[in-house]
Amino acid sequence: MGQRIGKNTILLDSKPCIISNAAVVGRKEGEGPLKDGFDAIFDDGTMGQDTWEKAESQMLRAAVETAIQKAELTAGDIQTVFSGDLLNQCIGSNFGLRELGIPFAGLYGACSTMALSLCMASLAIESGAFERVVAATSSHFCSAEKQFRYPLEYGGQRPPSAQWTVTGSGACVLGSTKGRPYIDAIHIGTIQDLGIKDGNNMGAAMAPAAKKTISDFLSDTGTSPSDYDAIVTGDIGEIGSTLLRELLMRENGIDISSVHKDCGLMIFDCKTQDVHSGGSGCGCSASVLCSEWLNGIRDGKYKNIMFAATGALMSPVSSLQGESIPGIAHGVIIRG
Amino acid sequence: MGQRIGKNTILLDSKPCIISNAAVVGRKEGEGPLKDGFDAIFDDGTMGQDTWEKAESQMLRAAVETAIQKAELTAGDIQTVFSGDLLNQCIGSNFGLRELGIPFAGLYGACSTMALSLCMASLAIESGAFERVVAATSSHFCSAEKQFRYPLEYGGQRPPSAQWTVTGSGACVLGSTKGRPYIDAIHIGTIQDLGIKDGNNMGAAMAPAAKKTISDFLSDTGTSPSDYDAIVTGDIGEIGSTLLRELLMRENGIDISSVHKDCGLMIFDCKTQDVHSGGSGCGCSASVLCSEWLNGIRDGKYKNIMFAATGALMSPVSSLQGESIPGIAHGVIIRG
Repeated sequence: MGQRIGKNTILLDSKPCIISNAAVVGRKEGEGPLKDGFDAIFDDGTMGQDTWEKAESQMLRAAVETAIQKAELTAGDIQTVFSGDLLNQCIGSNFGLRELGIPFAGLYGACSTMALSLCMASLAIESGAFERVVAATSSHFCSAEKQFRYPLEYGGQRPPSAQWTVTGSGACVLGSTKGRPYIDAIHIGTIQDLGIKDGNNMGAAMAPAAKKTISDFLSDTGTSPSDYDAIVTGDIGEIGSTLLRELLMRENGIDISSVHKDCGLMIFDCKTQDVHSGGSGCGCSASVLCSEWLNGIRDGKYKNIMFAATGALMSPVSSLQGESIPGIAHGVIIRG
Repeated sequence: MGQRIGKNTILLDSKPCIISNAAVVGRKEGEGPLKDGFDAIFDDGTMGQDTWEKAESQMLRAAVETAIQKAELTAGDIQTVFSGDLLNQCIGSNFGLRELGIPFAGLYGACSTMALSLCMASLAIESGAFERVVAATSSHFCSAEKQFRYPLEYGGQRPPSAQWTVTGSGACVLGSTKGRPYIDAIHIGTIQDLGIKDGNNMGAAMAPAAKKTISDFLSDTGTSPSDYDAIVTGDIGEIGSTLLRELLMRENGIDISSVHKDCGLMIFDCKTQDVHSGGSGCGCSASVLCSEWLNGIRDGKYKNIMFAATGALMSPVSSLQGESIPGIAHGVIIRG
């Protein structure tokens, strides 16, 4: 039985095991600092499809199928897949998973989706009724730019605060058997909105949500930053990271600077890869978690991480209607 | 501990209690056959807002707050709300729930969302870590027409197979305490796509998903249609209902005709209210479940229902790219 502690943290009794993880990315991500950890790097961003949306679906499917293969299972062994993405009506997941014949629970958490899918998958295992489930998500630079900003052909200028949507996908097979890495605790986030309206400054919009989830998660569990090899956000980029550290220090007296890592700053070399404030998109924290972090725990490089993925819950329509950008962050503690 | 039986049915040990339910709707729904069961009928579809999307958010918030009040609780007592809607990036839920300060797990199941949110809320209770959660969803005729079809001002023609998106919202407070009505079992659906491409014939696109979920759910639980006061779909309308009954009879030898009810055919008088094939939208099955069905169980009018809500997992973009319409149906068995 899961145990609720503090504000909204669930200590999991079942300790869902991450049986396998897979990360697949596009060419630009495959040229970045984490290139050696990905399961596949697709040089052709179209994935052989005739639209960017279909390419994203293919990429998600590749991640899910690779994770299932690495777990030495087949699609028929998976009892439910929890997934979502940034596209309108989540068509990345809907069409990517259509042919697999696996029961499907659709999620929407914007760029926080990997943490949300891990939370929901963990609750499914904790309920005692599921033995093997998949948590996944994806994003694609070209489908996201087209939908949220401008068609690529327009050649729109990007301000320095903008982040670069990662082309990639991550997937984990979670199981009820004991093993490492495992999920020790989950934290479902609460919407935070401090009134930021600039869609080219998502880091600032999402930092308050990351701040709330990290500070609540730490206080609920009675842990401090030094108890973790890393407190991993995804993806608030350079501007959001600076804000997050400042907010945590000023309002909570918590200093995470020695252990804080942001997936958006890890996947690209911001200086040479022209990505401005760093990577973003559901696929960013998903592909970084499912390569560097989870492989690092498997290899003994890391023992404990707190993974807090953030999402901006706006749409182009809400922004055009003058709304600010609500942020959310969901968290999981993963141990080796 | 939940028990998995058959293909994908979970028998819940905790028997999550539906502590309260609330349904709020717009004027047209308030003129229909179910008018006496709604908690609120809003004559002004704008809800005092300056856009349809904001109106939808207000309506969702009204349903969630009403359900919480009817449970004699406050927002602070709710440990997580599970919600989603049809709008791009689920802004109906994101903005509707923003000010409530409740942890939020975003879902996307198109018009199946009420069943999906009940499934996820039930798993949360079953995990042992949640005592009080909310499952909700919404839709609004004007925001949906604008986004999926044409702006209202255009005055587009609607073919006879088209369904009318319900302006409404439903919300349930679920608790871990024993009581009636309660959720006995859940069934997370699998995507079905038989190649229907006509966005004005959603009933046909979704009927195969309803067929799979209902037949699997019945065979998993070893029950037959006569064990239920009603097998409730939402929302496949007139065309989808005919197809569903035929498919179940022909392929599974199951005759549901004496107990089958479709929320899309209940909420409107199709003959006089000019809604063609019936109601649709997340808010349709949500508002009908949260009025007629759940109140009926409370009053002893019904004892057992199977609620199977269907969703069409397409987007306008996928349709324009020539894709067919994947359908999904999630199910819950509710007993009194």
